[in-house]
Amino acid sequence: MPDGDAIGSALGLTWALRKMGKTVNVTCNDHVSNTFDFLPGFAELTSKLPTDEEFLVYVDGSSNDRFGAAFDAKFFDGRPALEIDHHVTNDNFAPLNYVDPRAASTAEIIYRFTRALEIPLDPTIAQCLLTGVVTDTLGFRTSNTTVETLQTATALIQAGGSIPEIIENVFNRVPLSSLRLRGKVLCDAQLDGMVLWAQVPQSLIRELGVNGNGTGGIVNQLLSVQAAKIAVLFTEKENGKIDVGMRSRVGYDVATVARNLGGGGHKQASGALIDGPLAAARERVLAEIRKQLSNMPMSQ
Amino acid sequence: MPDGDAIGSALGLTWALRKMGKTVNVTCNDHVSNTFDFLPGFAELTSKLPTDEEFLVYVDGSSNDRFGAAFDAKFFDGRPALEIDHHVTNDNFAPLNYVDPRAASTAEIIYRFTRALEIPLDPTIAQCLLTGVVTDTLGFRTSNTTVETLQTATALIQAGGSIPEIIENVFNRVPLSSLRLRGKVLCDAQLDGMVLWAQVPQSLIRELGVNGNGTGGIVNQLLSVQAAKIAVLFTEKENGKIDVGMRSRVGYDVATVARNLGGGGHKQASGALIDGPLAAARERVLAEIRKQLSNMPMSQ
Repeated sequence: MPDGDAIGSALGLTWALRKMGKTVNVTCNDHVSNTFDFLPGFAELTSKLPTDEEFLVYVDGSSNDRFGAAFDAKFFDGRPALEIDHHVTNDNFAPLNYVDPRAASTAEIIYRFTRALEIPLDPTIAQCLLTGVVTDTLGFRTSNTTVETLQTATALIQAGGSIPEIIENVFNRVPLSSLRLRGKVLCDAQLDGMVLWAQVPQSLIRELGVNGNGTGGIVNQLLSVQAAKIAVLFTEKENGKIDVGMRSRVGYDVATVARNLGGGGHKQASGALIDGPLAAARERVLAEIRKQLSNMPMSQ
Repeated sequence: MPDGDAIGSALGLTWALRKMGKTVNVTCNDHVSNTFDFLPGFAELTSKLPTDEEFLVYVDGSSNDRFGAAFDAKFFDGRPALEIDHHVTNDNFAPLNYVDPRAASTAEIIYRFTRALEIPLDPTIAQCLLTGVVTDTLGFRTSNTTVETLQTATALIQAGGSIPEIIENVFNRVPLSSLRLRGKVLCDAQLDGMVLWAQVPQSLIRELGVNGNGTGGIVNQLLSVQAAKIAVLFTEKENGKIDVGMRSRVGYDVATVARNLGGGGHKQASGALIDGPLAAARERVLAEIRKQLSNMPMSQ
């Protein structure tokens, strides 16, 4: 499930290296959302394995399992391989690792590379990288947005990138069925102490005819409620598994909760996929959060 | 109903002029939302009329009626008065008018003034002006966001402004009742051709116990639906009047519709206050939009 930063970074780096005269193949061993079909090179993002390339680069994945079949230690025999990432949980899985958790997006790091390599920017490179910057910071809203982030965005816009085009494509192509699903789910949200939770049963998904990921943005809206320190969205998958999406305000840690449930993520945004049914999964997660809250200094 | 740009610009200019050693009084002749109570000087924003000040400045209002009792041509006798604004519909109501519709916010213009006057920025000035920049561009998402906008934000952050604090206060203090109202309204949204509309009856506001402006952001969410070229939200006020909020994609003009209804605004965002009851108001507005759509080249 590559996000805008993974895709924008991969394509931005691809076009930048081609600008240097390099031959570049780009691969993604998972389904890529049509949300990003406005980016040049989108159609190249198919499942391919390395062949005789001289150099491998992995972007925006914190561990090797994020790359599926595109990661295999045997690919590293006789050629250098580099990963570029900004996740604090990165485990330095590649032979060469450039990991900077202070960067708000991997695209911000790729931009640094284009400056160090003195690659002339063009609108294609700029729009790919700007998509990474804008989406990973939720439009410059995350707490890790820095002066460098804004300076990067400024330079990318000067080079021909367009924030309105990104917003239009990434945020403003919602199907009506997804809007109605969002409405129904928000309407039924429940506050349990400091935790605001909501759920998306398969029956509702089927009733409204929602395809694919129709729950985008819901958990962030839950956290916008003043009384909510932690927000949780339970989504029942077709196979009966429950996708648990969690968000928290600064001072409240949902990464530990996710790890205890077999998932992972960041302190302020994490997730896990656990067994159903929905009601049992909900009780399990809320109990885990209550346990965690009782250990948090700020919630005393 | 002053917004974040009006308040941020007024307070930012106040603190900047005080930094120059000037004595400044700041007034707002309308209720100011508690949303902005995190800004230094918020408590000074009460209804006061000019007395013996040597110079008057009006900010972020496109016409004199936006200032209520704080505007009166007799105030201009014997002293200069300046308005600073970025609305394209500004009618140059003051003796001196600095109006730049290319600026994404009035705060962006006030920032230019601080540079021209070489006023050293501090975190107080920076946070007030940054609030104007961030709120009026919906977080750098509007189509009038420019390189200057981002450079202004960068400089304001370097001077001590904080986007996370603004987001936390302006967007993340939603009452649970407002979230549920938003959910119910989105859930019942109706598509009529290219127009997606939804309504907020008083009965729902009372049932959910929503206070004040609990409908913030709903009309923007309506426009995020792919099929919607125009979004309309009808809100029934306590006095039975219907508040009509309209948004449109680039190429579709809702300013003319609003003017025909006795309201006003921009091509992409406008509004009007019309007579009820709700169903009659809705039919009247939708008919007006259909008439307007049939005249729009892009909708043929």
